[in-house]
Amino acid sequence: MTTANAPARREPGRQDWSSWPHYDAAATGFKGYWYPVTWTSKVTGKPSAFTIAGEKIALVRDGGKTYALHDRCPHRGVPLSLGNQQFPGTISCPYHGWTYDLESGKLCAVITDGPGSPICGKVTVRTYPTAQRLGMTWVYIPLGDEEPADIDAQLPAELAENPFVMGGRIEPRSGNWRFAAENGFDEGHAKYLHRTSLWRIFKTMPTWNITRVVPGEGVNRRWIFRVQDEVHWEADFPGVGHWSNKRWWKIRPPKETFNIGNTGKPKRVDPVIERQGFPGFASLAMPGILRIAYPNFIHYEFYVPVDAGRHRYVGVMVNFTEGFQALRFYVKYLGAIRWLFHGDFSAQDAWMVDVTDAPPERLYRPDVSLTAWRKLAEDEYSRRIASS
Amino acid sequence: MTTANAPARREPGRQDWSSWPHYDAAATGFKGYWYPVTWTSKVTGKPSAFTIAGEKIALVRDGGKTYALHDRCPHRGVPLSLGNQQFPGTISCPYHGWTYDLESGKLCAVITDGPGSPICGKVTVRTYPTAQRLGMTWVYIPLGDEEPADIDAQLPAELAENPFVMGGRIEPRSGNWRFAAENGFDEGHAKYLHRTSLWRIFKTMPTWNITRVVPGEGVNRRWIFRVQDEVHWEADFPGVGHWSNKRWWKIRPPKETFNIGNTGKPKRVDPVIERQGFPGFASLAMPGILRIAYPNFIHYEFYVPVDAGRHRYVGVMVNFTEGFQALRFYVKYLGAIRWLFHGDFSAQDAWMVDVTDAPPERLYRPDVSLTAWRKLAEDEYSRRIASS
Amino acid sequence: MTTANAPARREPGRQDWSSWPHYDAAATGFKGYWYPVTWTSKVTGKPSAFTIAGEKIALVRDGGKTYALHDRCPHRGVPLSLGNQQFPGTISCPYHGWTYDLESGKLCAVITDGPGSPICGKVTVRTYPTAQRLGMTWVYIPLGDEEPADIDAQLPAELAENPFVMGGRIEPRSGNWRFAAENGFDEGHAKYLHRTSLWRIFKTMPTWNITRVVPGEGVNRRWIFRVQDEVHWEADFPGVGHWSNKRWWKIRPPKETFNIGNTGKPKRVDPVIERQGFPGFASLAMPGILRIAYPNFIHYEFYVPVDAGRHRYVGVMVNFTEGFQALRFYVKYLGAIRWLFHGDFSAQDAWMVDVTDAPPERLYRPDVSLTAWRKLAEDEYSRRIASS
Repeated sequence: MTTANAPARREPGRQDWSSWPHYDAAATGFKGYWYPVTWTSKVTGKPSAFTIAGEKIALVRDGGKTYALHDRCPHRGVPLSLGNQQFPGTISCPYHGWTYDLESGKLCAVITDGPGSPICGKVTVRTYPTAQRLGMTWVYIPLGDEEPADIDAQLPAELAENPFVMGGRIEPRSGNWRFAAENGFDEGHAKYLHRTSLWRIFKTMPTWNITRVVPGEGVNRRWIFRVQDEVHWEADFPGVGHWSNKRWWKIRPPKETFNIGNTGKPKRVDPVIERQGFPGFASLAMPGILRIAYPNFIHYEFYVPVDAGRHRYVGVMVNFTEGFQALRFYVKYLGAIRWLFHGDFSAQDAWMVDVTDAPPERLYRPDVSLTAWRKLAEDEYSRRIASS
Repeated sequence: MTTANAPARREPGRQDWSSWPHYDAAATGFKGYWYPVTWTSKVTGKPSAFTIAGEKIALVRDGGKTYALHDRCPHRGVPLSLGNQQFPGTISCPYHGWTYDLESGKLCAVITDGPGSPICGKVTVRTYPTAQRLGMTWVYIPLGDEEPADIDAQLPAELAENPFVMGGRIEPRSGNWRFAAENGFDEGHAKYLHRTSLWRIFKTMPTWNITRVVPGEGVNRRWIFRVQDEVHWEADFPGVGHWSNKRWWKIRPPKETFNIGNTGKPKRVDPVIERQGFPGFASLAMPGILRIAYPNFIHYEFYVPVDAGRHRYVGVMVNFTEGFQALRFYVKYLGAIRWLFHGDFSAQDAWMVDVTDAPPERLYRPDVSLTAWRKLAEDEYSRRIASS
Repeated sequence: MTTANAPARREPGRQDWSSWPHYDAAATGFKGYWYPVTWTSKVTGKPSAFTIAGEKIALVRDGGKTYALHDRCPHRGVPLSLGNQQFPGTISCPYHGWTYDLESGKLCAVITDGPGSPICGKVTVRTYPTAQRLGMTWVYIPLGDEEPADIDAQLPAELAENPFVMGGRIEPRSGNWRFAAENGFDEGHAKYLHRTSLWRIFKTMPTWNITRVVPGEGVNRRWIFRVQDEVHWEADFPGVGHWSNKRWWKIRPPKETFNIGNTGKPKRVDPVIERQGFPGFASLAMPGILRIAYPNFIHYEFYVPVDAGRHRYVGVMVNFTEGFQALRFYVKYLGAIRWLFHGDFSAQDAWMVDVTDAPPERLYRPDVSLTAWRKLAEDEYSRRIASS
């Protein structure tokens, strides 16, 4: 006899994330990392509210500095981001004027209890280290009470060492940040899902590849790289049919396999990018930073956890140039890249991230990119909590 | 002393559904039955998504055949209904091109992993038997792995044996399917709730009836019938007042009690309907099929479970006629029945099904129709799971 | 080592409501009290639905009397407020015509089961005592089966003993009723939160006060009063800065401390108000009635619990006058008070009540008003349940 309420049948093969227990538990993000929150130009004297890795945070600028505080007045739980500045270097809760020092988070005055208020100095709201990089304000979400990690050690090394110009988008998105990170580094979907994007309208996408994932070296030792050993532009699937993304209007695909760009062997590679010696087109680092090396620019994605069901997508396109060339990049970015790549193309990813529902899951050969990333996350985070 | 948080006091009398344990547990519907899903004309090569009895199902047409698959790619949980056909006889997940054979549900190609993909043939999505009846696509929701039941044995016998024309409506509705089924067969409400419907504007509704429920015989042995022994057109309620639905503009009610139609003894009954020898006006069968025998047509309702809080209402009006008479029926259906009966009248039922909130409940004499139905459901389903 | 999922750290000091267990448990309101529901003019023969202290209630008027019944037909759970009157002195469920006597709640006729329906008289819906005061319909929510308390003993005594005119607003609001009551009596926020309200545009608000809470006496023994011992109009906060609400366009604050009105010592106090001898400007009584004594009128707020996340705000402005003076009050109320005070000013409170999120909480010196109120509630309710 079978019953009407039998559980969903599990097929053989990997179904869950138990091999990566820290990763499995990190639905709201890993703590102990820096996260980009918003464009620095949007942080003003009027506080703004964000949730990053499950923490409610109020951002406020004062005297040219940016401060991040836990967005909850300990008195009665009112968000401090609803308040404003009554004194320089402070923020006051809108309800009773509890006033906190922006630097230390200490309650330094209680307007409605007078200068002798006995509670002053006895209450502190948590503050978070902030930094400015890539035109954005970053916040460090600590594991415990440790000093913040070096933000530059967390960022791609090539950005610290070379002048560049950039354009980008920050978007709140649905779906867990891990699906966004996995999607970003995912070998398999790019060729198939994005074959219909406007960004690829004249470029043939491969049908299938043979891919390895290798660890980075030197300044890239925190990264893993996807290396394409074979690129196949068409295929005959036995008993099913022929499949190719080749079309008469698309540029003919190249003969050689390549690891910069993914639609053709480039004539010229930007010297800064060439100098990096990236072993592969796509690379990924904790806590969710993707790097895609095109011949003339690098695209970065930062997957910023909000809560278990939402993340912030930060997409940045960088061109290692200066002076008049910078203007050329801005024209190209605003005229095309922003709409085609950070818009239409990236919206296909956002769609899949939103509907992905795993585990359970059944992995296939190209998912080596997913399992390598999960292992990277697990190993790096294990070391981090061991040393904290 | 009494306390502020005392539980709701229970009155004596039946309060819960514990006499019908399977029925009580069937909030998302009984498995092991065929359910109508949508009009066949709406099932095309572009997949569509439905939830039936708690199961997510993708429907797609290919080569004139309709296929139903579990609407979840086992790879990463993306709905297959978001995908499309890349090869004849298959459906491909939009994310990575995992391609399933529509007939067997077997993974037959993985576009992004090439012809030699080792996972091919090792993954299968559940498929559901489909059938076409009454212009609709039906899906069998199995109990376990059993062969589907005979759909025609589940349908009213008169529909298999006689030519007919029909019109109908399919509507997603709020409320549990059991409240919809109970409402459909419910003796008590029809006369009172629907007294204000446009469909009854010139017809007096009875005030109260004496009703029995009897089991069907022969081809109708899966059905129960409501038999009206007495019909009362007015009443004096002691100490409360007089009540009647009689109005000067309404047709005078008949003297005799009758069991075809509910507002008057008909001059002529359609010979096909007469031949059925239905003992009563309304009959009900598992898994939620209502039949209302009017003198010249039969109205059917199918209550299709979606989840615990939603169902699909399928209303069908059938006329046992052919040729030129069929045209007359269509004119009558589209000109009046569709709006007055399947629209306004049925919306009153939808309203009550949405606000019904039981158990707890207190049943009264006419609720013999409810308890007989629950017993029918309990008995038939017990036999079904015992034999599966 | 610290972990990523450490619980929120608790600071020393009071964090929870465990000292007031009944208050803590009263998220949906205290039972055993009268609550104002709606303007009496809005209660008609067509039933209306309200939730008060977690109880669903149907209000209906018949023959000049107002009736309150539990808004659920015991038959199948349909709200009686969807029904209507089929006989004088009754209400009938829309589904099957179960008809209840408005006075007793007894099932007195079942239209669809005829005059001899055996269930008649065996089912009763709960009825609630109603009363009319201040132009509003009040409902008594009992603890158990006790007789209702005397509504006039629950209302401010000055309203029973003096003629008056009034204007008011009833508004559904977000947030728990206890936050609304605490906000109303709260010493601390008024001066700071409301400093920006239009109602105070020409009146300086104090910076901080020294406040005591004292119990009322005589007819006010159910009340507690806030007494202002010192009022400070500016302050220097060491190391932080100077703060004052004084502005060149605002009326200069008075020298003396006062306890009627909160922005200045009045030239003249209404004789009725003066005669009350209120020890303080603001007073509060169970189950959430606030009284603010201005020199020429008294403002009352009733915080009516709906459920754990919603309440009804009832604001009433009373002027102890008659005849031609009444007209002057109405002009003033409709032309200014209604928009500035019951509108803009009160919306600031509604905003804070909505975002308050406690416990945990950290209390400060002025929160003596909160703790005194909680103790009042705890003590009075303990006596009430002990005697019931």
